[in-house]
Amino acid sequence: MANTPVYLGIDPGLNRTGYAVIGVGATGPRLVEAGVIASTKGDSLAERVHEIGSGVKEVLAEFQPQSVAIEQVFSHAQYPKTAVLMAHARGAILYSIQESKIPAVHYSATQIKRLLTGSGRAGKEQIQLAIQQAFHLPAPLEPNDVADAAAIALCHFHLSRREANWQID
Amino acid sequence: MANTPVYLGIDPGLNRTGYAVIGVGATGPRLVEAGVIASTKGDSLAERVHEIGSGVKEVLAEFQPQSVAIEQVFSHAQYPKTAVLMAHARGAILYSIQESKIPAVHYSATQIKRLLTGSGRAGKEQIQLAIQQAFHLPAPLEPNDVADAAAIALCHFHLSRREANWQID
Repeated sequence: MANTPVYLGIDPGLNRTGYAVIGVGATGPRLVEAGVIASTKGDSLAERVHEIGSGVKEVLAEFQPQSVAIEQVFSHAQYPKTAVLMAHARGAILYSIQESKIPAVHYSATQIKRLLTGSGRAGKEQIQLAIQQAFHLPAPLEPNDVADAAAIALCHFHLSRREANWQID
Repeated sequence: MANTPVYLGIDPGLNRTGYAVIGVGATGPRLVEAGVIASTKGDSLAERVHEIGSGVKEVLAEFQPQSVAIEQVFSHAQYPKTAVLMAHARGAILYSIQESKIPAVHYSATQIKRLLTGSGRAGKEQIQLAIQQAFHLPAPLEPNDVADAAAIALCHFHLSRREANWQID
């Protein structure tokens, strides 16, 4: 199994960044590990951005994914400040990914929902169910950031495998 | 002069990031170096963010500033996409600054204008004039990103010197 590909999914955030590592099992995708990289409240923006970026760097070093899938920032006019803070974290994360020379793929929330449920407007519960079924989990994956990261990784797993099959044909 | 403090000003951007290094001369601030770190058009977002972040890292290593002043992202609802892209670059820059263990200070465009001209709504020409006079330059500093970086550095120079004096009292 040493050479089977590993995929990393990232749900970026300045307070908390969720991540999920997916491997290829005998019958489909296998959830290898998932967790949250949190930054310290009260720390400076530079410190927080660094906590998130270096946390991702550690995950990359440990699992050496062949590629990383990361959720896009919504740039809704309604939440400019939230989007800007998330983009700071995302910049540090992409910096770490590029430093590790691993390709990054970007997915929008709508793409992820559509790929996993068939509808770009699926609710949290439908996404949770899709993840639970894909990984044969006894209960919904918690917390939310981890579930979102697993959804992104799963999306990317399916698209990457499909591309791999195309290459065989 | 080996121990006189050096200040770095940064005007962050994903396409181009301006920087200016200021030292302490006998009669006031001295412009040591200024330039632009540009990312390559057509490269991926991760590559571009990395080009900007590692460019800043090189400047930090070369000039070893005692602190860095960086312009804040405007999070205007009118330009959500521009703000989000700038914030990506800013995240990578702050990551590099924190990696170098140098303190970062954030200034808004309005603060910079007010500090250099007395008015938060000063135009480009007034800022250019303030920079030109402060550094005894024969002509306005070009291009714009470099002038903006010099303005931020100059702001930070003045505030840092003022604080230093307070500490003596």
